[in-house]
Amino acid sequence: MQLKNDLFLRTIRGEEVERPPIWLMRQAGRILPEYRAVRSSVKNFVALVKNPELCAEVTVQPIDALNVDAAILFSDILVIPEAMGLEYQLVEKKGPIFPKTIENKSDVDALLFGQDAADQIDYVYQAIDCTLERLDNRVPLLGFAGAPWTLFAYMVEGSGSKTFSKAKRMLYKEPELSHQLMQKITDTVICYLKNKIKHGVSLVQVFDSWAGLLDLDLYKTFAIPYLRQIKEALGDFPMTMFSKGAWFAYEEIQALNPTIMGVDWTVSPEHARTVLGANQLLQGNLDPCQLYADHSAIADNTIKMLDTFGKNHIVNLGHGVYPDTPLDGVKHFVNTVLRYRYD
Amino acid sequence: MQLKNDLFLRTIRGEEVERPPIWLMRQAGRILPEYRAVRSSVKNFVALVKNPELCAEVTVQPIDALNVDAAILFSDILVIPEAMGLEYQLVEKKGPIFPKTIENKSDVDALLFGQDAADQIDYVYQAIDCTLERLDNRVPLLGFAGAPWTLFAYMVEGSGSKTFSKAKRMLYKEPELSHQLMQKITDTVICYLKNKIKHGVSLVQVFDSWAGLLDLDLYKTFAIPYLRQIKEALGDFPMTMFSKGAWFAYEEIQALNPTIMGVDWTVSPEHARTVLGANQLLQGNLDPCQLYADHSAIADNTIKMLDTFGKNHIVNLGHGVYPDTPLDGVKHFVNTVLRYRYD
Repeated sequence: MQLKNDLFLRTIRGEEVERPPIWLMRQAGRILPEYRAVRSSVKNFVALVKNPELCAEVTVQPIDALNVDAAILFSDILVIPEAMGLEYQLVEKKGPIFPKTIENKSDVDALLFGQDAADQIDYVYQAIDCTLERLDNRVPLLGFAGAPWTLFAYMVEGSGSKTFSKAKRMLYKEPELSHQLMQKITDTVICYLKNKIKHGVSLVQVFDSWAGLLDLDLYKTFAIPYLRQIKEALGDFPMTMFSKGAWFAYEEIQALNPTIMGVDWTVSPEHARTVLGANQLLQGNLDPCQLYADHSAIADNTIKMLDTFGKNHIVNLGHGVYPDTPLDGVKHFVNTVLRYRYD
Repeated sequence: MQLKNDLFLRTIRGEEVERPPIWLMRQAGRILPEYRAVRSSVKNFVALVKNPELCAEVTVQPIDALNVDAAILFSDILVIPEAMGLEYQLVEKKGPIFPKTIENKSDVDALLFGQDAADQIDYVYQAIDCTLERLDNRVPLLGFAGAPWTLFAYMVEGSGSKTFSKAKRMLYKEPELSHQLMQKITDTVICYLKNKIKHGVSLVQVFDSWAGLLDLDLYKTFAIPYLRQIKEALGDFPMTMFSKGAWFAYEEIQALNPTIMGVDWTVSPEHARTVLGANQLLQGNLDPCQLYADHSAIADNTIKMLDTFGKNHIVNLGHGVYPDTPLDGVKHFVNTVLRYRYD
């Protein structure tokens, strides 16, 4: 199987490339009118996530609309908690709500986990099959999962939160129970990602969206060991680790040897290169809010970012694209990168 | 006027002290049953903020209940936007809501600012007078204001937000208008803090609660110049700058020469000392969630923090104390510090 656009794969193999590849976190989403049309045809977000045909359709939309160098499977990190036994709803403008949360040992004991849980998520693997067919070898397909800490945070807190203090309370107050829950989540993430790989994704990205609420001690105790298990279980398979806000743990994350490290917008490209070196493949990191600016500012700031990261770079935003971003700003960002050439 | 407990003042004057002083952000608040009793006697939070007698009462409560080394005037950073012309409500569990926000130049032009705006906030200055009388020289009284960027964020966004993307959009899209608004806010903050100082506070703290949503470029452009104006306007008067999440701008903040720099919990004491040096007076930074832990863990982690910061340290949490923190955990934290002695 030869990809028509293999720039992303050549980059992660460390080959010389003419320019950095680009894709956007949440590129399959509300910035695209064709996504909004599909979304409004189903009763809620979770129904869309569970419909393989529609997931494939919205996954491919940004390849047509934006001409980016990779597709990322439309899905949600919370399919894993659901498969483990915690149903959720996604409430517009409020985020996810879990009617039942994890409070004690019997809650942890009752969870489905590992292969049994991962096998519940068949609609995602079907979505991969459908997407690969529709993509027709144009660009690689990326898969993803939530990192154990981030999934733990939702499962204990029960919703989004500015502080996730309920979840963090469990880390501080019941470290042993916390480790038991982290382990069950990790076992499930590993089986889930292995299933995705079997179905043909080219790379998996692990999103630790709430990493920045911890500190280095907590991250080393409750996050790094489980990220290590995931990395070791998948061996040399290409993996991106994106721990948002975890500037304080970059060296510890790099020591896990991920193929790519995601960088959020609060870390300047200069700082990232100073800490992580010129050879680490980095992904990011334009502030999504920059896409609200004038086109000339978008182009200037994009080129400055590309020049500063230099080679070994996958272009992306420093966070998922915000739903109200003007589509022409997004296109201008992408096109600036498509026209760029390394010296 | 001789204070009975002048440890805080001796520390900020750089004198040798026997132990670091301690106070807690949000110590006058919902952790105390006596605060909750006062709060439930008025119709809403804003009514409490506008009642000088009750503000004085709740400001003094933690001095009695916790034996901390400083009082901080009970108030709210949003009194300034209100005085400038934007009323707000504080909705339980949702945070502040501004029915009217700043969207364009005519909105900025219509704002009251500077001395005229600062003089609207007379209830705060009255609260200082009442508090000083009730404190009876036991401990120093601290005042505070929101930093220009944080106030700007609320005035443009109209509420709390995970991303403050509407406020950041204005920075990127309308930099000139953003500077005009920042300047009006800054003029007001300066007059407000000068009024507070005239009424007898011993130090002012500037809270940049949403600093961590920016990056170094934005912080240098839209935050640092206005913090500098505030610092210069107040001259040598003791000032704390607490820019939460702004690890990336610590050197730029230190260059403004604040008396004290606040440190949030994501920055380890080691890292803070490495970047800012042994002589910078630092304030912080236990993770508020640590106070959910067992007493032995609280004591161990507190002493480890004190040992690592060393001298030139004001003990605090790395964020305001969370309302559901067990009061005996808070007391155990404070008492651990009260018993501590430098070698």
